[in-house]
Amino acid sequence: MLDKRDAIAVPEAVKQVMKYAPKGEIEYVSIDKCDQRYLGDAVKASHDIPPFDRAPYDGFAIRAEDSVHASLDNPVEFEVIEEIGAGYIAKKEVGPYQAVRIMTGALMPKECNAVVMLELAKDIEKDGKPYMVIKRSYKPGDNVSYQGSETKAGEVLVQEGRRINPGVKALLATFGYGRVPVVKKPVVGLYATGTELLDVNEPMEPGKIRNSNAYMISSQINRVGAEATYYGKLEDDFDTCFKAVKKALDEVDILITTGGVSVGDYDYVPEIYKKLGAEVLFNKIMMRPGSVTTVAQYNGKLLFGLSGNPSACFVGFELYARPIIRSWFHSQKPHMQKVKATLNSDFTKANPFTRFVRSKLLFNEGKLFVEPSGLDKSNVVTSLVDCDSLIILPGGTRGFTKGDEVDVLLLEDQIGSEWPWN
Amino acid sequence: MLDKRDAIAVPEAVKQVMKYAPKGEIEYVSIDKCDQRYLGDAVKASHDIPPFDRAPYDGFAIRAEDSVHASLDNPVEFEVIEEIGAGYIAKKEVGPYQAVRIMTGALMPKECNAVVMLELAKDIEKDGKPYMVIKRSYKPGDNVSYQGSETKAGEVLVQEGRRINPGVKALLATFGYGRVPVVKKPVVGLYATGTELLDVNEPMEPGKIRNSNAYMISSQINRVGAEATYYGKLEDDFDTCFKAVKKALDEVDILITTGGVSVGDYDYVPEIYKKLGAEVLFNKIMMRPGSVTTVAQYNGKLLFGLSGNPSACFVGFELYARPIIRSWFHSQKPHMQKVKATLNSDFTKANPFTRFVRSKLLFNEGKLFVEPSGLDKSNVVTSLVDCDSLIILPGGTRGFTKGDEVDVLLLEDQIGSEWPWN
Repeated sequence: MLDKRDAIAVPEAVKQVMKYAPKGEIEYVSIDKCDQRYLGDAVKASHDIPPFDRAPYDGFAIRAEDSVHASLDNPVEFEVIEEIGAGYIAKKEVGPYQAVRIMTGALMPKECNAVVMLELAKDIEKDGKPYMVIKRSYKPGDNVSYQGSETKAGEVLVQEGRRINPGVKALLATFGYGRVPVVKKPVVGLYATGTELLDVNEPMEPGKIRNSNAYMISSQINRVGAEATYYGKLEDDFDTCFKAVKKALDEVDILITTGGVSVGDYDYVPEIYKKLGAEVLFNKIMMRPGSVTTVAQYNGKLLFGLSGNPSACFVGFELYARPIIRSWFHSQKPHMQKVKATLNSDFTKANPFTRFVRSKLLFNEGKLFVEPSGLDKSNVVTSLVDCDSLIILPGGTRGFTKGDEVDVLLLEDQIGSEWPWN
Repeated sequence: MLDKRDAIAVPEAVKQVMKYAPKGEIEYVSIDKCDQRYLGDAVKASHDIPPFDRAPYDGFAIRAEDSVHASLDNPVEFEVIEEIGAGYIAKKEVGPYQAVRIMTGALMPKECNAVVMLELAKDIEKDGKPYMVIKRSYKPGDNVSYQGSETKAGEVLVQEGRRINPGVKALLATFGYGRVPVVKKPVVGLYATGTELLDVNEPMEPGKIRNSNAYMISSQINRVGAEATYYGKLEDDFDTCFKAVKKALDEVDILITTGGVSVGDYDYVPEIYKKLGAEVLFNKIMMRPGSVTTVAQYNGKLLFGLSGNPSACFVGFELYARPIIRSWFHSQKPHMQKVKATLNSDFTKANPFTRFVRSKLLFNEGKLFVEPSGLDKSNVVTSLVDCDSLIILPGGTRGFTKGDEVDVLLLEDQIGSEWPWN
């Protein structure tokens, strides 16, 4: 009655899955719609920054050589021949002892090579004409932002696979990316299995619970930047299930099912994989929760058979499906970032398998602490509300106590990691 | 020519702005569309969790009293009279030395009070009928998840103002929230000012730069969970500007402009506020970058006059506009979370004003480190790409060196803080 299953270690399971990591194609979207998308190509500077020599402050553009003898005892006067705001171009030629009133960001008149800050100049009038007076000297280049001093045209500023944040979007705008190359979102199909599942709008019935996994996973998929195509609940009948999965496989890039992977008599998912002719990469992992997580590939497409248990489902998604979706998006760091933190609670029970505890990070005096985000029973959905990380407790013969240093995987982090299991 | 402006301290400026914090109304959206929205009401358990007494494992439901004498030397046999999967209900009454094969999550037969795990029972057949044998005793309640043992109906599980993440969404589904009360998004109007600004699709011209601030801020607004209504670039003419701002004010909940707040002759924003009759809360703050950040209120609506300088604009938004938008969303912790970290770089130059340095967090051996995310010039847009935090360097007469402990504000954090300036 019990299947014989060989449990493999978590890093090995990740490695097996990553062999089939697909890579998405590029599409172009309007810059107005690019937030949180992944760059399909590197962002290059299409011009120098600054694009021209400009004034970094409000003040007066002068020829530095005219100021050489200026000092407290020897104020030097300049005739203010013109005024230019940012976006304008000086019309007059600047001669000896002439100045141009210039605004922040404005193009330097070509004869000028220094800017006197407004606060350091005194306005006067002579013969009805505006003048300004300075009491110090300037060197060529003083207060000038030179073309290309920050970035040269052609420089690669952001690599492909980066998620677009406010800073990246600012760069895209700066360099004229009205249409932005992003990675197309994969079609991630989602099925929930289980006769016990009620739809969110159905009233409660004895022996039944509402389907929460499909909603939870769709939100996890969104967090990574993709979207779920929800195919609904799988019927209890094997043939119906099989046909549904086969049809979905034609339409999706990745297929996720929840439930049906245990050793129970109603757990059809392994049989479906078998009848499909899909290659099961593993069906037992040395981890808790989620040891029955099963992943298969069919013509190179990955089928994730996640546990029906909410917490196991949650962890299984983050460990195995998340890096696949991030790889699809060309991320160079598809895995979760792993950091060290100090345990704030005891875990006295030893466990032969590695445990992944849903947890909450705390910063205190420059140190990182971590504690469970709720009751740590694998069926406790409330512990997911405050969950921003997963504590890794290696399997073995001992428990862990408050104050121990542990590894923690970050869930909200946008940076990621090349390979967290080193 | 220079306005006299009185600089106020950052905490005082935040306090002034928060006096006018608006609070958004509630609307209902489908659970399918609720990701990343803010809860407009608390989430309450609409039923117990578990909703009924259930088996947490695959196994056999028995009456514990029948197992009292079971031991290695005295195996006890049970007739297996029925099989129930999750979602099904037992049909037969369980008598002495009878058992029901039960799947994970299934409702316990009402006569049973313990579950024998599948691995600990041996299947046999007797007279053509299925039996199972155990070699240990069970107490009432062994391996039973009792109704309400995790959560009682009526319990408040998530407070209003929380952003919906995968865990919150799972709870919403569990408790039948097909339509979810969320806070309506505010209309955040956005104007860019500056004759030097080219649209993203326009070719470069001498003296001009492309408008990046509007795109950057729209992305910052998105990150907080709202959406920008971009009104375009403001014309150079005062009357046109004035009319445009006045019209926008009728349509928006919050108005943000970038540029035009310096002391330059082309900086119209203060004049517009004056002619409107808006109350200027402050027009100079003891901070760098962004000292000219100007905020006004007009009939209780906030007008944010952010600097046209990209980095000043970025910081001004996060310090003053972000908590207003999060307050709108009923967040109890609208400000950025402030943590301690160790500086990874030197900042030798003293500065009279508090500096906010765009920075990047690093975790190393359980400690938090922070370093500038790029060149720290206020016009350097590239330093925003890796920016996930802001280092606070208090104003004063000394610089800071590598190894110093500093305060850091977190930009990507979803938790926030009630008041970061304690």
